[in-house]
Amino acid sequence: MRAAQYRGEHRITVDEVAATEPAAGQVQIAVAYTGICGTDLHVLHGSMDSRVTTPQSIGHEMSGTIAAVGEGVTGIAVGDQVTVMPLDACGSCPACEAGNGHVCQRLNFVGIDSPGSLQERWNVDASLIVPLPASLSLRHAALVEPLAVACHDVARGRVAAGEHVVVVGGGPIGQLIALVARATGAHVLVVEPNAERRALAERLGADTLDPIGADVPAIVDERTGGAGADVVFEVAGVAATALSSPHLARVRGRVVMVAIHAQPVPIDLHRVFWRELELIGARVYERADFERAVDLLASGQVPADELITRVVPLDDTQAAFEALAVGDAMKILVDVQGARA
Amino acid sequence: MRAAQYRGEHRITVDEVAATEPAAGQVQIAVAYTGICGTDLHVLHGSMDSRVTTPQSIGHEMSGTIAAVGEGVTGIAVGDQVTVMPLDACGSCPACEAGNGHVCQRLNFVGIDSPGSLQERWNVDASLIVPLPASLSLRHAALVEPLAVACHDVARGRVAAGEHVVVVGGGPIGQLIALVARATGAHVLVVEPNAERRALAERLGADTLDPIGADVPAIVDERTGGAGADVVFEVAGVAATALSSPHLARVRGRVVMVAIHAQPVPIDLHRVFWRELELIGARVYERADFERAVDLLASGQVPADELITRVVPLDDTQAAFEALAVGDAMKILVDVQGARA
Repeated sequence: MRAAQYRGEHRITVDEVAATEPAAGQVQIAVAYTGICGTDLHVLHGSMDSRVTTPQSIGHEMSGTIAAVGEGVTGIAVGDQVTVMPLDACGSCPACEAGNGHVCQRLNFVGIDSPGSLQERWNVDASLIVPLPASLSLRHAALVEPLAVACHDVARGRVAAGEHVVVVGGGPIGQLIALVARATGAHVLVVEPNAERRALAERLGADTLDPIGADVPAIVDERTGGAGADVVFEVAGVAATALSSPHLARVRGRVVMVAIHAQPVPIDLHRVFWRELELIGARVYERADFERAVDLLASGQVPADELITRVVPLDDTQAAFEALAVGDAMKILVDVQGARA
Repeated sequence: MRAAQYRGEHRITVDEVAATEPAAGQVQIAVAYTGICGTDLHVLHGSMDSRVTTPQSIGHEMSGTIAAVGEGVTGIAVGDQVTVMPLDACGSCPACEAGNGHVCQRLNFVGIDSPGSLQERWNVDASLIVPLPASLSLRHAALVEPLAVACHDVARGRVAAGEHVVVVGGGPIGQLIALVARATGAHVLVVEPNAERRALAERLGADTLDPIGADVPAIVDERTGGAGADVVFEVAGVAATALSSPHLARVRGRVVMVAIHAQPVPIDLHRVFWRELELIGARVYERADFERAVDLLASGQVPADELITRVVPLDDTQAAFEALAVGDAMKILVDVQGARA
């Protein structure tokens, strides 16, 4: 079979490798599509070399069809359309014992800490399989994983119908958070300096605001009768928005820190104190988030085609990574299946 | 009557001033004791001159006896022993309308924004009165307000029986938080470099740890089976503890930011993300917190005498402020009543 493999030194090659049979408890998936995300870019750029062995197929946003079933696996059959929740928890650490296996203290994130879906045949533990309804195309289903991230963020923010939500940053996850918050019944404002991203957010039904030169807190106050937003999502991931986001929230509002800040950044704890805010961390997703993401895509509430910039063949994997790195796309899918043709 | 009055320029004088009758809706309190807190020190040091008119009696931790009742006040009688919840909310801002009047967006904090209890006769709005049981001495009752702060902090942290709590900072509020958390049934560790403060925390029933040279996260992990604390209270108020406190919390733990940081401080949002922490702001108290504080003192669960370093006459108010400012006391009460003798 063919596989796109990270080799270190900013390089991905597409190679012929031997497929292996699924072990006991595993299934083998014929991968259809694999989406590329920001974390994959971090791998390519070498930031995660301590976790990734080389050569290794990465990738964890995917869809596919069951090609083989290992010993002892029940309830999954060859031909089933599936996606994978790529969290392999240890089951015995304090986080797992407290029911928070999704942030297991010894988590194996499949596609980073172990091989991912940029290969034609992918063996994974059957417990990670999430079934897909026949009505959902495999192309759209490749968005289940990033949409599950957004579902988790919205759940962590406890967004309720009728609430005012501000999403700071209109990249892929910001757009998905805006969609899920709207599907929950919230009024959503996306704050984003890039005109193309604002236009996309508007097509997807959100209000938008260009923060450059604008008094964003004053505008949010005006939208909310002087209260401030119920929930703010900090998705931009720069120090300036980490500092300013708490100033958009109402008394007892929630600020979900979605973006990853590798280094400590200044936070205005006086604002947190003064308004009794909650700053909430959100990481990956739980199974309920995956199931909600499947429902939102299958029911058409999330218009997947608007979010998929293009689909490329497996041979173009490295070029697709590079296009994403310079911001030349919202979401690119790699057609792993096409590579077999 | 006599009154201790802040005059600006780091000065408090004790003067003879005219007492006034309580207006309609007010009661007049013969003030027994007034405790001095960190906020009062900020007033003396000039940091709150934009809010305090001069000359003005400050003070808001108090106990006393009803001396007169204004027109239209019912349910309160001369001779009743009382304290005051010094939050005068506007009733019409978005925070008030959402039921969060304690952090009203136009809050009048009585004792700062309007006259306080360092005077023999104090007129306050009857709606702010909290009745005291006869079994509670007025001396102990002067601790109700700071204890209500601690009750509120513990409530914001959602501390439950059996949980592991770490209190970072063993000053007056840290000690009270430790007491309330213990009364809630939690296991409490107070992290404090000052040996006298650690000794007090131990007399009050907490475990303690000197952080100097210690690996505090490792010790907390050891106490908690590798999990980390359920709830961490950051009460020290220095940048180093704001940065380190999230590293003491378990997956999905809560970090209550009690201390006031006037300037933004670096926060490790990666830790907040990685462990899905909540950073929670807590400010003042609600009526339920005041009522719990009264109960805890009246039932003897909070040993007030251990916390009151000394009681001084009204004439010594400025000297008492100065002793507190250099850390020469845990809690000093001013005996306002004695000044009448």
